[in-house]
Amino acid sequence: MNRRKFLASGALAGVGISLAPKAASAAAARTAPPIIRRSPTDTVRLGFIGTGGRGRSHVGIALQRDDVAVTALCDVDPDALSRASNMLEEAGRPRAATYGNSDYAFMDLLARDDVDAVVIATPWLWHTRMAVAAMKAGKYAGVEVSAANTLEECWDLVDTHEETGVPVMILENVCYRRDIMAVMNMVRQGLFGELIHMECGYQHDLRGVKFNGGEGKPGVEFGEKAFSEAKWRTRHSVYRNGDVYPTHGLGPVSMMLDINRGNRFVSLTSTASKARGLHKYVVDQAGEDHPNASVEFRLGDVITTVIRTQSGESIIVSHDTNLPRPYSLGFRVQGTEGLWMDVNRSIYLEGKSPAHQWEEAQPYLDQYDHPLWRRYEAEATGAGHGGMDFFVLHAFVESVKAGTQTPLDAYDAAAWSSITPLSEMSIARGSEPQDVPDFTRGLWMKRAQEFALDDSY
Amino acid sequence: MNRRKFLASGALAGVGISLAPKAASAAAARTAPPIIRRSPTDTVRLGFIGTGGRGRSHVGIALQRDDVAVTALCDVDPDALSRASNMLEEAGRPRAATYGNSDYAFMDLLARDDVDAVVIATPWLWHTRMAVAAMKAGKYAGVEVSAANTLEECWDLVDTHEETGVPVMILENVCYRRDIMAVMNMVRQGLFGELIHMECGYQHDLRGVKFNGGEGKPGVEFGEKAFSEAKWRTRHSVYRNGDVYPTHGLGPVSMMLDINRGNRFVSLTSTASKARGLHKYVVDQAGEDHPNASVEFRLGDVITTVIRTQSGESIIVSHDTNLPRPYSLGFRVQGTEGLWMDVNRSIYLEGKSPAHQWEEAQPYLDQYDHPLWRRYEAEATGAGHGGMDFFVLHAFVESVKAGTQTPLDAYDAAAWSSITPLSEMSIARGSEPQDVPDFTRGLWMKRAQEFALDDSY
Repeated sequence: MNRRKFLASGALAGVGISLAPKAASAAAARTAPPIIRRSPTDTVRLGFIGTGGRGRSHVGIALQRDDVAVTALCDVDPDALSRASNMLEEAGRPRAATYGNSDYAFMDLLARDDVDAVVIATPWLWHTRMAVAAMKAGKYAGVEVSAANTLEECWDLVDTHEETGVPVMILENVCYRRDIMAVMNMVRQGLFGELIHMECGYQHDLRGVKFNGGEGKPGVEFGEKAFSEAKWRTRHSVYRNGDVYPTHGLGPVSMMLDINRGNRFVSLTSTASKARGLHKYVVDQAGEDHPNASVEFRLGDVITTVIRTQSGESIIVSHDTNLPRPYSLGFRVQGTEGLWMDVNRSIYLEGKSPAHQWEEAQPYLDQYDHPLWRRYEAEATGAGHGGMDFFVLHAFVESVKAGTQTPLDAYDAAAWSSITPLSEMSIARGSEPQDVPDFTRGLWMKRAQEFALDDSY
Repeated sequence: MNRRKFLASGALAGVGISLAPKAASAAAARTAPPIIRRSPTDTVRLGFIGTGGRGRSHVGIALQRDDVAVTALCDVDPDALSRASNMLEEAGRPRAATYGNSDYAFMDLLARDDVDAVVIATPWLWHTRMAVAAMKAGKYAGVEVSAANTLEECWDLVDTHEETGVPVMILENVCYRRDIMAVMNMVRQGLFGELIHMECGYQHDLRGVKFNGGEGKPGVEFGEKAFSEAKWRTRHSVYRNGDVYPTHGLGPVSMMLDINRGNRFVSLTSTASKARGLHKYVVDQAGEDHPNASVEFRLGDVITTVIRTQSGESIIVSHDTNLPRPYSLGFRVQGTEGLWMDVNRSIYLEGKSPAHQWEEAQPYLDQYDHPLWRRYEAEATGAGHGGMDFFVLHAFVESVKAGTQTPLDAYDAAAWSSITPLSEMSIARGSEPQDVPDFTRGLWMKRAQEFALDDSY
């Protein structure tokens, strides 16, 4: 079933976003997918909430597009805001309205009539509140990863989406990584047989991100004395012990496993190693007498989460950001007829590969290159993170233009992001299993897979 | 502290094995390591219980040694027994006494005066009973992996060892794999810093081992109609759902983490994927109508166990034997200053490797080649499993000759083997954490690491 056919059958046609009274639309959401269609448009008027490094990367990609008008920008950091404004000027685009005089300046941006959709790239604690406010204001919400910090926030995303009928898309770019899409293509064509076991994670030495000495300066500061992500991200390593960044791995894996579309996460256990890496980094760089040497970093250096799904697959999710190591998302996709692993760039397919021997994966990745990548390779070249940033914004913009649901939706944002608080709870309880809520309230049984079925978006 | 110094200080010197009354020696065992020293000897008189494929591999290695006399052989399969006898004849060795007229014929072997030690390579359900009987008969027991099937059997090994003072060695050959020993050498020299996280497992497509059509014939039979391991091993895939073969991974990892020697396993969770591989194999080979197509194989295709240790390390142990895949024990050794992985043959060491980039591991493995391998490379060449089988038997024989404790002991056999029943229990309870018993009854706090400290054994 292609996307258009599905939308015709599964979603109600309508003009304008449904903003029916809360009770009525919430009740409707219990029996059918929420109303998400609105009038198609040729140009998306995009606002940006958060114009730091990540936000400006999105701005840059948006400015490459003829079908996007950047109408509003918001950041509480005047420098970040003016850098984004300058990008518009340099691109010969009209000046955008700017906001930033308070933490809630984004509400003024959301009140504008000339904003169809917003891209939210702010510190994690703001993601859900801003996405919820955007949906309530009738603006498509594209929100950076992770989308939520607590289980309540996960429900906020889902409930607000169902009450307003407005889509929220988690901007999980790794769903669009070229090798991932090729492997998903192979999964869908049955090359791995029935899927059995998956591995993924975020294994990235972030010590130089979590600490610096101000812009462009090395150091061991975080919080107010530091620059960029070290200003806010590091606190999550001080106060939390769990997988605080699960979606780069889980997003792609979920799409291959049809999570929320015939399958769902059932439960997980999570285990933390001791926490040594961040303290050692501070001491090695600045000595035992530096004030940050006395900070207790609660985040275990390696967090291992194991998820069980309704269809019986197991998933290992790793989080490993405090130790020296090469970057790896550690993907493994394993079924009854073979497996792919990214760490050794290898594949084994029964009946195709020499018995019991790895083959180089690249020829398969080339052969099964996803139609989206074949079509948009030129446009993606030069976009962030090896091109995948092009695709995630492309999907968001095209969804807004078509007035339809986004390919990654509120249920995905909730299910993927929920792994963080559930991981924390499991670790706090000695690795006890935690049930993963069914954020679809049973709709997973009837939702069809719609993600990247063709070369449109 | 070298081995000899430790033994002099930590073990009581004595002549002959202590066979003091049970109550007295058991009480002694609660306050000090059990008495294990007996008079040194130049030649070990070795008996073999189980002379199938694995047992005969040990016989072959024993026959290469001048310091071993093979005095007795036991197998309930007359063909396996005569093949082993023929090996002695072909090696120009004296004929050995043979036993095999009943399941308990091994008791007659154990009653002989001319047997100092036995190598037990029988189906899993016999390992503990035979090792216990051997210790009770005053014979050093070398037992193949895993050593035990249930928690009670784990305690049987420990209690019998403590009561009799006779050593039992789990013959975990992977502890002696060349790359593993080099990495352990690096661990001990601090190259990885403080250890944080380990991964290991048994990932081996055993479908052709679990099924055949009789000797040398393909097929989908197991049990009485089948040959060799398919006769008995496959039943563990029918009746059990847990990591039934954990020690190839856990043995080496335990030695690097000093388990039972300053550290111990604290608890674990275990998660099973669905079971598809074995049924599919039967159907693909022999069709839906074959009687074995209706067998329900309970063993999940991929079992993931996560262990926490007293020192705060986490360990992922994988068991993956029902699906098509290349062989891999999946080792990862990760500390505060770097990590090694075997699947991509790579290493990363902070300050040595180019920043954020993998290096080929081999030059490091060569540089840190373990003294045992440097000394015995010639002897090991040609022995089974890439030479490591030489070392495991070497260690056993040298321990018997010296009349000392074996380097892998009863506590190791118990702790490593206990992961199987604990994994089954966790899976049966929805991945609930299970405490790992402290088989040393607290002695882990004072036991020193003695494994492979030099080039002796």
